[in-house]
Amino acid sequence: MLKPFRTLVLCLVAALPAFADEGMWTFDNPPLKRLKEVYGFEPTKEWLDKVRLASVRFNDGGSGSFVSADGLMLTNHHVGLQCVQNLSTAEIDYVENGYVAPSRDKEPACPGYEVNVLVGIEDVTAKVKAAVTAAQSDKQAADARKAATAQIEKACTEKTGNRCDVIKLYQGSEYALYTYKKYTDVRLVFAPEQSIAFFGGDPDNFTFPRHDLDVCFFRAYENGQPAKPAAFLPWTKTPLKDGDLTFVSGHPGGTSRLYTMAELEAERDVSLPWALKLLKRNLSVLRAYSKQGPEQERRAKAQIFGLENSFKALDGRLTALLDQKAMGVKAAAEKDLRGKVAADPALAKSLGDPWAAIAAVEKKLAARATEQRMTGFAGSRLLQLAATLVRYPVEKAKPNDVRFEEYRDSNLASLENNLYSKAPIYDDLQEATLADRLTLVQEELGREHPYVKAVLQGKAPAEVARQAVNGTKIKDVEVRKQLIAGGKAAVDASTDPMIALAKRIDPLSREMRKWLEDDVEAVVTRNGEKIAEARWKFLGKTVAPDANFTLRLSYGPVKGFPAEGTIVAPFTTFHGLYDRSASWGNKEPWKLPKRYVERKSALDLETPLNFVTTADIIGGNSGSPTINKAGEFVGIIFDGNIQSLALDYFYTEEQSRAVSVDARGILEALRKVYQANTLADELARR
Amino acid sequence: MLKPFRTLVLCLVAALPAFADEGMWTFDNPPLKRLKEVYGFEPTKEWLDKVRLASVRFNDGGSGSFVSADGLMLTNHHVGLQCVQNLSTAEIDYVENGYVAPSRDKEPACPGYEVNVLVGIEDVTAKVKAAVTAAQSDKQAADARKAATAQIEKACTEKTGNRCDVIKLYQGSEYALYTYKKYTDVRLVFAPEQSIAFFGGDPDNFTFPRHDLDVCFFRAYENGQPAKPAAFLPWTKTPLKDGDLTFVSGHPGGTSRLYTMAELEAERDVSLPWALKLLKRNLSVLRAYSKQGPEQERRAKAQIFGLENSFKALDGRLTALLDQKAMGVKAAAEKDLRGKVAADPALAKSLGDPWAAIAAVEKKLAARATEQRMTGFAGSRLLQLAATLVRYPVEKAKPNDVRFEEYRDSNLASLENNLYSKAPIYDDLQEATLADRLTLVQEELGREHPYVKAVLQGKAPAEVARQAVNGTKIKDVEVRKQLIAGGKAAVDASTDPMIALAKRIDPLSREMRKWLEDDVEAVVTRNGEKIAEARWKFLGKTVAPDANFTLRLSYGPVKGFPAEGTIVAPFTTFHGLYDRSASWGNKEPWKLPKRYVERKSALDLETPLNFVTTADIIGGNSGSPTINKAGEFVGIIFDGNIQSLALDYFYTEEQSRAVSVDARGILEALRKVYQANTLADELARR
Repeated sequence: MLKPFRTLVLCLVAALPAFADEGMWTFDNPPLKRLKEVYGFEPTKEWLDKVRLASVRFNDGGSGSFVSADGLMLTNHHVGLQCVQNLSTAEIDYVENGYVAPSRDKEPACPGYEVNVLVGIEDVTAKVKAAVTAAQSDKQAADARKAATAQIEKACTEKTGNRCDVIKLYQGSEYALYTYKKYTDVRLVFAPEQSIAFFGGDPDNFTFPRHDLDVCFFRAYENGQPAKPAAFLPWTKTPLKDGDLTFVSGHPGGTSRLYTMAELEAERDVSLPWALKLLKRNLSVLRAYSKQGPEQERRAKAQIFGLENSFKALDGRLTALLDQKAMGVKAAAEKDLRGKVAADPALAKSLGDPWAAIAAVEKKLAARATEQRMTGFAGSRLLQLAATLVRYPVEKAKPNDVRFEEYRDSNLASLENNLYSKAPIYDDLQEATLADRLTLVQEELGREHPYVKAVLQGKAPAEVARQAVNGTKIKDVEVRKQLIAGGKAAVDASTDPMIALAKRIDPLSREMRKWLEDDVEAVVTRNGEKIAEARWKFLGKTVAPDANFTLRLSYGPVKGFPAEGTIVAPFTTFHGLYDRSASWGNKEPWKLPKRYVERKSALDLETPLNFVTTADIIGGNSGSPTINKAGEFVGIIFDGNIQSLALDYFYTEEQSRAVSVDARGILEALRKVYQANTLADELARR
Repeated sequence: MLKPFRTLVLCLVAALPAFADEGMWTFDNPPLKRLKEVYGFEPTKEWLDKVRLASVRFNDGGSGSFVSADGLMLTNHHVGLQCVQNLSTAEIDYVENGYVAPSRDKEPACPGYEVNVLVGIEDVTAKVKAAVTAAQSDKQAADARKAATAQIEKACTEKTGNRCDVIKLYQGSEYALYTYKKYTDVRLVFAPEQSIAFFGGDPDNFTFPRHDLDVCFFRAYENGQPAKPAAFLPWTKTPLKDGDLTFVSGHPGGTSRLYTMAELEAERDVSLPWALKLLKRNLSVLRAYSKQGPEQERRAKAQIFGLENSFKALDGRLTALLDQKAMGVKAAAEKDLRGKVAADPALAKSLGDPWAAIAAVEKKLAARATEQRMTGFAGSRLLQLAATLVRYPVEKAKPNDVRFEEYRDSNLASLENNLYSKAPIYDDLQEATLADRLTLVQEELGREHPYVKAVLQGKAPAEVARQAVNGTKIKDVEVRKQLIAGGKAAVDASTDPMIALAKRIDPLSREMRKWLEDDVEAVVTRNGEKIAEARWKFLGKTVAPDANFTLRLSYGPVKGFPAEGTIVAPFTTFHGLYDRSASWGNKEPWKLPKRYVERKSALDLETPLNFVTTADIIGGNSGSPTINKAGEFVGIIFDGNIQSLALDYFYTEEQSRAVSVDARGILEALRKVYQANTLADELARR
């Protein structure tokens, strides 16, 4: 599946020429020429507007779409999982058993959810760039850009009441103001059993053929009533076929196609090995916790599931970067562009050597790799909440444009939505993960490191974790609200042990963040812009901007792919689901939910269940609708195959495929397995 | 699927230590120690004798087993295909429609079939080695060995009336006399539609998951009555499970595990590229012929099918040899052994440098690569028959032990069975393939080459082919018999244009064969023996001998394998068959036969259809029974997955798998799809 994974260093620098069905395109610049030439299709402005307005972003990391006039939204089960789990208790486990709302008044609200619809795109490149002069240092330029951005966002929020984000595109060659309509009353309508949503578990994750009903229906509410969205995608009545052109409208989280070689090598040699090491460690803690009993297993399930997913994804990315052939192509392209710049003395003089500048920064960053990863609030949701509580009054008191980005006025509502979420927090789980984190920090930095001293104060990691978790009151949402209401004085006066821990970490974490922003990101951004400038001059603007969790349009036909000596078919069917389960003797993670065993004879087993297209997608696209030329819903993206993990760096349509649940499979399951006919009827309405 | 592919140079030289479930073991030396230690199983002498006597060899390249007391034999459809095709006509196509004998008297005889059962194994190493002295040259040694071998075989045939073959094992370190009971009255009992036997066609060939009913039942007859074999494998009533230990008893055609690096490199750089080039060319001729009409398509089908199979197999082998890591392991092992020999001055002096000697021969062989491949009787079945007719009287007149091997007394009955086969021969197809072959010969060797001059006599290739095919009478079996009866005088007097063509080729072909036998094989054999000697001294006899189309026992548990990011399940079911067909929209080569569409509802779709084990197999194992510890039939080998193509050179159980049709799937199809209850009942009888 396709949750986004972000690493700190931003996506930058010189692009290769786009080819084939490459590209996650912004809605104001779709690849009309290629669509017309290759596929004979010209999407109209109305088509594009409808698709955009029917697309939604789930802010905890996924995409989705409106599929009815009454605010019904469809996303993946793994995107909605946190809500399904939060609504479950030790007595009723909707993750295991699924949930079918019997009527609209039985649609329970998801704590802390926020869903966005992109309602406006405005080019603000001139406004942002006007703030920066050539004479400024990298840091001055970064500060000036930040201030300009904050002002634009604030003015927009004040004027529209909407969420407003200034988006950097093409390595800072362009800036756009994206305005979002927000829905924060999001309720659960339908979730299948996790064992069918994630049939095949970790082994089958990121693979195809696949047999998952990875869907979850929510409904957006406004003023206590089902929302009436500006657009929705009608459920297709035209059978999707091998070769049919499809579109994906969603929110790819991030790509690194335009990284310099120095950045790719740092990713390969430092970032990814570190990330995999941390994931492995976290997984082992959660698995040990999970083994304590069925309730512990239930509590940790969603988190384990997310970490396993990240591990497999990052492992696939590392494999991609270890591919010497693909890396050779990247290196040759960079060498070519650098050669062209060197051959143009005027340009060379004005640009300097931005590749060398970035490489130097990567070297500095690698030297602080351990410290950078250990200095922060990781390890516990409670510690992260405490950090927000500590920082909120401090940041809020600053002028809007010099605050940390997440505390800007334009982001505060989203931040508060998360801060006051009623999602359950389990003490024993918090304690286990925090204790392990603090142990790791001590192992990695040593007892004498200032951060370790500040955090542990000479005590054992397990002791610090135990006292902080057991002693804190901030698990209570009302306590959090009171602290915020009390301002800085209340935080300063607090003796809550988790708040105290966050206060001890805060100055050290701020120092690291300042260094990263001023000495790393500012340099990378400035030089990235320069490389982009060279690229547009010599090669033209032939690619889409790197992904950044904003709305994009991808496209590609339904198409199988060569693998293991044969051709993988573009579709799977319910027959394949029953085959895979029986082939493994119906054991975990291929055990079918009871409903599927009992209602098998009711199903038309040849109904398509999943399918693949060549569309260019990445983590964050989870839940994106797959759309036909008529602008109808034909499926929902939930994964890429194992080869698609390289898409972070390289696009290829040889084997990389985006995996969708087929609209027909969803409907067949709703009617025949779940007897959810009211829901199915709502989908059929136009 | 697993038809054997032989290259001329024999299998030789230093082995690596055996590990895991490696090894195609002779029945007089099964890996009892490992079976006991790892699997806790000790096959008794009775178990081994029963399995051996129930195993059969189909002499045109496959394996099989007796599965009833009444001579019922089971092999693969692709092993029996030639018979099914030969029994078909333009009016009734059993290849397309399948054949179910309604009763025993409707079991039609297969033209030219011979089936062998291994009834005796005798160590004749001392007898063969006694003929060779150190003072002899390589050629003298080869001649002496040949003569000794021929005498042993002849004495055995005269004494027993059986087929007797002296088998070289362990690079000539050992020789064994294998005695076979022969069945030449072989009749067709049941063949499914080729589209289900070979479901998925060339794309799915050599892959898994798989969904093929690749079976064909024959019955051996003696004196016009169903044969009563010494043993048969009872059909299991115990469900086979993931992890169960299984055995494979069959006739692997050839492996090259003990090749020197020089030989492997020659295979990689010369033999395989040549073989692939020729296969590609032959395929294009047959495909063009096939497109002329449905009858032509039917005629060429079996041949195309065989060539596509070879192409995919050899392509997989080439891929294996291009794997630098695996080749590095081979090279290191060879270097190690050579180092050990060099460190032992006495041994080094007695052996010389056998690796260098083989490398030198490979170089000579590469220089004549083109000529070697162009000089012969390839291109037409009629030309091959003519060659046999021309050579028969000449060879027969020689003392037994200096004849070409295939004309030795011990082989004559088999040769005559093939020579007098009534299998249909199609003039237009013969003409097309012969004309192309002659064209190729002219392209490769040039008009001035003696072989080209002798063959074409200044005429165009198409003209020579047309005249030879249209003018020959040897298509008539009676004409062939008369020529043989007439002896050398009849052949000399013959003006039949095909005979004339064979006569012109014969001396040139003999010259090439003599060079290959005396200057290549003799050197390789002598030096291979020396390397084997060094190997046994330093590393011990820890491996099975390379395969050579004699009966071997392999073993390994039922086990899935990692691929494409997930784990492929060890079984497939009928659900998987219907899934794959529907996933491709029921198009070729995944189109289901009518019976399967009509009778789907009668099937228990969760019945296992195919499964994989780690058993060590190779081309020639097609049709081998897969047997459980109780000595019962649980499945029939019909293929390996794509990774198994490397098994020619390296064994690995990481991904390589042997693919079987499951006994349960066969029975389910026989009863529910074909209503072949009499046959199914015969299988159930003990």
